[in-house]
Amino acid sequence: MTEQKSPVTVVGLGPMGTALAGTLLDRGHEVTVWNRSPGKAAPLVAKGARQASDIADAVSASGLLVVCLADYDALYSALAPAGEALRARVVVNLNSGTPKEANEALRWAEHHGAGYLDGAIMVPPAMVGHPGSVFLYSGSAEVFAAHKDTLAEMGDPTYLGTEPGLAVLYNTALLSMMYSSLNGFLHAAALVGSAGVAATEFTKLAVDWFLPSVIGGIIKAQAPTIDEGAYPEDAGPLEMNITTLKHIIGTSEEQGVDTEIPFRNKELLEKAAAAGFGKSSYTSVIEVLKRAAA
Amino acid sequence: MTEQKSPVTVVGLGPMGTALAGTLLDRGHEVTVWNRSPGKAAPLVAKGARQASDIADAVSASGLLVVCLADYDALYSALAPAGEALRARVVVNLNSGTPKEANEALRWAEHHGAGYLDGAIMVPPAMVGHPGSVFLYSGSAEVFAAHKDTLAEMGDPTYLGTEPGLAVLYNTALLSMMYSSLNGFLHAAALVGSAGVAATEFTKLAVDWFLPSVIGGIIKAQAPTIDEGAYPEDAGPLEMNITTLKHIIGTSEEQGVDTEIPFRNKELLEKAAAAGFGKSSYTSVIEVLKRAAA
Ligand SMILES: NC(=O)c1ccc[n+]([C@@H]2O[C@H](COP(=O)([O-])OP(=O)(O)OC[C@H]3O[C@@H](n4cnc5c(N)ncnc54)[C@H](OP(=O)(O)O)[C@@H]3O)[C@@H](O)[C@H]2O)c1
Ligand SMILES: NC(=O)c1ccc[n+]([C@@H]2O[C@H](COP(=O)([O-])OP(=O)(O)OC[C@H]3O[C@@H](n4cnc5c(N)ncnc54)[C@H](OP(=O)(O)O)[C@@H]3O)[C@@H](O)[C@H]2O)c1
Repeated sequence: MTEQKSPVTVVGLGPMGTALAGTLLDRGHEVTVWNRSPGKAAPLVAKGARQASDIADAVSASGLLVVCLADYDALYSALAPAGEALRARVVVNLNSGTPKEANEALRWAEHHGAGYLDGAIMVPPAMVGHPGSVFLYSGSAEVFAAHKDTLAEMGDPTYLGTEPGLAVLYNTALLSMMYSSLNGFLHAAALVGSAGVAATEFTKLAVDWFLPSVIGGIIKAQAPTIDEGAYPEDAGPLEMNITTLKHIIGTSEEQGVDTEIPFRNKELLEKAAAAGFGKSSYTSVIEVLKRAAA
Repeated sequence: MTEQKSPVTVVGLGPMGTALAGTLLDRGHEVTVWNRSPGKAAPLVAKGARQASDIADAVSASGLLVVCLADYDALYSALAPAGEALRARVVVNLNSGTPKEANEALRWAEHHGAGYLDGAIMVPPAMVGHPGSVFLYSGSAEVFAAHKDTLAEMGDPTYLGTEPGLAVLYNTALLSMMYSSLNGFLHAAALVGSAGVAATEFTKLAVDWFLPSVIGGIIKAQAPTIDEGAYPEDAGPLEMNITTLKHIIGTSEEQGVDTEIPFRNKELLEKAAAAGFGKSSYTSVIEVLKRAAA
């Protein structure tokens, strides 16, 4: 109850930074804010935040800096003028970026004598601070342990490991999976829609049952084959699925629905079959994805 | 306990028909079996099934015929010689096929004076008879109601409507969604794998949380926009996702992973943006999928 909450500085007041600062204020933290365009601080100041006079002031105000800017270049532009003030501060950087950028940011922070933790926010601004909202972190285990309680105010903190690029890499990977799944759902909804089935009606089977139970079940059951790099065809050989995809393409044509999505899925399996995986398990497709096209 | 179970004839003893007949035997039904290659009946006969002498004998043995053959042509080849014996029998056809084939099979059955229900099995043979195994049905509501208890022995019977093609159409649609989701997962696993993350480790976030909660959550929240045919951009405009996909492609290149999957997803969104949906919700992509390519 009388627990002392540590002061936090939030750098960047786009939709996400504003949500982070607002949530930290709601939870009783002393919050200092800074944004390139200073006008965006007004609603937070009205809620009790202190607006820093400049970035050095912002950095000096708290041991913990939560940075949420458009990209890594914005991080350097915003924080560079703070100079020596960064020494012994901790930067938790929640920008989207690549693993390489996260590694460079770690070296930049070390060069300035600051602690560094990289992170990725897996929810939209409106979900910040809500139970079940996941924030991924990677980099210094010490920084994570020291600030976990504060980070937990913004969302469930999930620590992925010391490699600083892991949070943004997981984020990017999950988003890639998301786009394929959403587009696959939309093709499926177009197919049943061609017979007058409503998308909301279709979700009762597609999302309430098929997505978690069948698709999730297959992935969980087959993932060990990927780690072992051995692809026994217990659930049927990969090439069997090429026949099924031809059937999906044929049905799409019959129903007057676009065939591009199943056609590309078939092409990928054919590529895997041509690489020698026709008699292997479905998961062997990853072997052709691991290799960047020349 | 002393409930009388109705006799069933199973036509087709591939892996699936064998599983169906075996399960019905286990549940106490009198089961007659027929297969083009008669040798496949031996294990079922050993379990108590009666092997029909010919297809007319098979059809005459039971009021309910469960047919599970390679395709609809096999259905006609197998059952045609039964001729008049089909009158007043009920055919439940579990072959894979297209909605058009299901409609033709209904007319064929009506021509022979037989009742007809079309179905699709959503599980592999080993899961037949297990709780949670879904069998989809469509066509005659009377046939479904009359035989629901028997059908329930093979798997959870889900009735989709009177249009006979719905079961195979749902089946095809769900499979299309499955291939996109599996391939999306494999691309994601290749991405995190490039940093040494095991696929089984990745599934703890990707499958236990992200797939049902985030992907499923987005679909459930956005599906009504499809039914309304109005695509308000409450969760951000479609074109914003093109930027994210460019980021996924860039990260894939940086990590030496194939870019084909995010590239195709980006292309699809660009097509939707070019069709005027750039400022609409993500779900408006379905408008370009509904239209078959010229
Ligand atoms: N919004 C979401 O749903 C969401 C979800 C997950 C993750 N994220 C990530 O969170 C980060 C922030 O996102 P956002 O939605 O709040 O908005 P954003 O548009 O990505 O970023 C806006 C912020 O970046 C600042 N900025 C841009 N260039 C700058 C520069 N050169 N120097 C200093 N500041 C600069 C802006 O300052 P000005 O106000 O002065 O322009 C503003 O504070 C992004 O990396 C995003 O990918 C966002
Ligand atoms: N196996 C699965 O995981 C699964 C899952 C869901 C749905 N299904 C569907 O269930 C159905 C049966 O599949 P299955 O795996 O058991 O094996 P299948 O290889 O698809 O079908 C084999 C059966 O079809 C018969 N057949 C083929 N052509 C015939 C013809 N012209 N005349 C008479 N019979 C003919 C075969 O007879 P012979 O023995 O004489 O060759 C055998 O009984 C298929 O439509 C399949 O798509 C299968």
